[in-house]
Amino acid sequence: MNPKILVIGGLAAGPAAAAKAKRTNSEAEVTLFEQGEHVSYGICEIPYFIGGVTPNKSDIEPFSAQKLEQTRGFKVKTLHRVEKLDSTKRLVVVRDLWKDKLHEFKYTKLVLATGSSPRRLGIAGENARNLFFINKLDEAYALKKFIDEEQPKRAVVVGGGYIGLEMVDTLVSLGLKTTLVHRSAFPLSSLEDSARKFVLSQLTKNGVQFEPNQTVLQFVVDASGKISKVVTNRSSFETGLVIVCIGVAPNTELACHAKLRLGTHTGVLTDQHQKTSNDAIYAAGDCCELKNSVNNKWMYLPLATYAARQGVVAGMNAAGGRAAFKGAIRAVAVKVFDGEVAHVGLSLKEALESGFSADTDEISSSTKISFYPGSSPLSIRLIFEKRSHRLLGANVWGGSGSVARANVLSSAIQHKLTLEQVAELDLIYAPQFSPLWDPILTAAKQARKQ
Amino acid sequence: MNPKILVIGGLAAGPAAAAKAKRTNSEAEVTLFEQGEHVSYGICEIPYFIGGVTPNKSDIEPFSAQKLEQTRGFKVKTLHRVEKLDSTKRLVVVRDLWKDKLHEFKYTKLVLATGSSPRRLGIAGENARNLFFINKLDEAYALKKFIDEEQPKRAVVVGGGYIGLEMVDTLVSLGLKTTLVHRSAFPLSSLEDSARKFVLSQLTKNGVQFEPNQTVLQFVVDASGKISKVVTNRSSFETGLVIVCIGVAPNTELACHAKLRLGTHTGVLTDQHQKTSNDAIYAAGDCCELKNSVNNKWMYLPLATYAARQGVVAGMNAAGGRAAFKGAIRAVAVKVFDGEVAHVGLSLKEALESGFSADTDEISSSTKISFYPGSSPLSIRLIFEKRSHRLLGANVWGGSGSVARANVLSSAIQHKLTLEQVAELDLIYAPQFSPLWDPILTAAKQARKQ
Repeated sequence: MNPKILVIGGLAAGPAAAAKAKRTNSEAEVTLFEQGEHVSYGICEIPYFIGGVTPNKSDIEPFSAQKLEQTRGFKVKTLHRVEKLDSTKRLVVVRDLWKDKLHEFKYTKLVLATGSSPRRLGIAGENARNLFFINKLDEAYALKKFIDEEQPKRAVVVGGGYIGLEMVDTLVSLGLKTTLVHRSAFPLSSLEDSARKFVLSQLTKNGVQFEPNQTVLQFVVDASGKISKVVTNRSSFETGLVIVCIGVAPNTELACHAKLRLGTHTGVLTDQHQKTSNDAIYAAGDCCELKNSVNNKWMYLPLATYAARQGVVAGMNAAGGRAAFKGAIRAVAVKVFDGEVAHVGLSLKEALESGFSADTDEISSSTKISFYPGSSPLSIRLIFEKRSHRLLGANVWGGSGSVARANVLSSAIQHKLTLEQVAELDLIYAPQFSPLWDPILTAAKQARKQ
Repeated sequence: MNPKILVIGGLAAGPAAAAKAKRTNSEAEVTLFEQGEHVSYGICEIPYFIGGVTPNKSDIEPFSAQKLEQTRGFKVKTLHRVEKLDSTKRLVVVRDLWKDKLHEFKYTKLVLATGSSPRRLGIAGENARNLFFINKLDEAYALKKFIDEEQPKRAVVVGGGYIGLEMVDTLVSLGLKTTLVHRSAFPLSSLEDSARKFVLSQLTKNGVQFEPNQTVLQFVVDASGKISKVVTNRSSFETGLVIVCIGVAPNTELACHAKLRLGTHTGVLTDQHQKTSNDAIYAAGDCCELKNSVNNKWMYLPLATYAARQGVVAGMNAAGGRAAFKGAIRAVAVKVFDGEVAHVGLSLKEALESGFSADTDEISSSTKISFYPGSSPLSIRLIFEKRSHRLLGANVWGGSGSVARANVLSSAIQHKLTLEQVAELDLIYAPQFSPLWDPILTAAKQARKQ
């Protein structure tokens, strides 16, 4: 009998797993369940849809369920919520939300790609109709509709992480007076201080009211059911719109049904083959933790690229192939108005906590030769091991071209290069592209003298 | 007695060598001779000075002789031409061009950084006052003065290499109707055909008349001493200005005095420590050949970054230190109007000639996610070894962001990564910076299927 592969979750990891499973074994019966209406959409692109950078839904919803079925050859069941996982009988119980009926499906192998849910503040008013979480397409469409129709003048964004900053940028571009409430002194808690100060300066320069060291205590909801005021431990802010971006947590309800091993970040743990503690169950994407390949520790880093890579690996292995996801070093970046900031590898704090005898050093340079039009300041802070000079992490920030350099450093960290090796990288020079010594080389040359 | 270190040549490698020698051994008496008036200027920046991108001479002449002496601690003798090198007696004969007097200087160690000279066509009219070579600061100042004062309407550039293309871009930006005469069918002979076609399309789109497969046979010089017509084997072109950029050749006259070993490209050969075949003589920069670290063959690639790196190594070793220049993989790029094109590592032809069983594969993608403002097409062609999948070379071309990607590939080639390893690089994704799969990953993933 042909193997039955079930995939639960239709956003990034799920469709990647289902497609790869079908490609690996065309005899396999592959079925994907998605509780929502949409599949395989671009969650990362949502801020740009809301901001009107692209007005086309087709840009963020490139695949309908039908198109996935036709081009990838697996079955897609949207509006189907998997409510129970019985790993002993190898079956799932699925509610068809359209007909409100329960069905059982047996599996040979199962891929959990159940994703994540936004963390909530857990205070009254969080369900007000002018409060949004940016984690689902329906939520994005609702937010866009709300802004178009009700034209709020002010917004409060809670949480200065990557998504929070993208939303702040978007709201300012739409003309809203925007306040960013953040729990610590500077945005982006995992960056080094000087990079965080740069981000803060980008916010201030562009008229954003940054409110540091604050926790939201209360939402004041008016008669129309909308939050009119956000009260924190230090102040209060009138508003017409609230966006909460305080991170996401892995969805592990089904994983718990099967008693899968979870990690300290509450995500599913897998081996390199994306296999969970149950031999018949694989997991991929935001519901999983992943191995940081610099310090070999588990981390929780729900990014689309990792989800897709894990999905491919899970799908291939579920269908009898053999693939491995070797972990991630962390490579993230955000554009804050005209500034870019990127973080690759470990922070100094993480490096020290992981037992590295780590040090750090910073340089200031420019994206191109300084007289060239469009040249702008660029800074690099390297984190490295003192004795071996192995590069462990880097922050890069400044004008356009900062993130591209972080990719060179990311590759260097991934392949365990030393500062000496980074200083000898054969990088291109021409005035239009960099100073004579690319800032990467300058940073490595300076740091190795320490 | 303190060691006497003499450095011959004051552009890129020479000052780097002299400065490093002094830093390595502060007791050493270090003297640099330069036959021209200027030292340590930015030869690569000349097209942008001529084009008015920067009108400031200080941007291309950051160091006067005096400033070098004061900040770096070595003696600088400009307008001093070394006319004889006696390696047996360890002395050089130097003409003070100012006073027209000869002096002898003895050395403990000598660093040759005599640079290169433009190749000439070797036909009559090549000394006409409206014909320029772009290789010296004085020549650049003369060209700028000529353009400002005589306002030519038309220009012919001979040679479609990197400098030729930069000059074409510059002349068009100044409003000159520009013809590019090139010996083969497409510009940039070392690139793969599809990249060369892209460059040609950039030229055509911007109104440049590209004349392929042509050799200049004759310059018609008018009564005022200016070339009025350029005659090739296929056509002739009226002009008010001629720029000849058909490459440069190493200056090795002094090397020949000392009977130093030269290579097949007529440059000085050195070991990793930049030592020549004479134990007391080091060489660095455009007068040298350098080792291509991908195929371990000698090549001639006179670029400022390599010159400076070799200079540092030569200077350190001449002063008793121990440093090595481990060769180059070749990393070059040029901006042609709004297009970028980069070449890193070997071409397919070089790879095959070096004995690699090589193959090549190409992808088309975009610099950012396609809907994002400023996103433009980007193509990558990879050259790799068939069996091992080791990456050997790459061409990257398209809009802004192409060259930055070439730097990631350059680093991958330098560290001998395979296509599988490149496909697993942890590169940043966000819509502002790349498609979900960075074109680098897409290229490697597609090529490994071959």
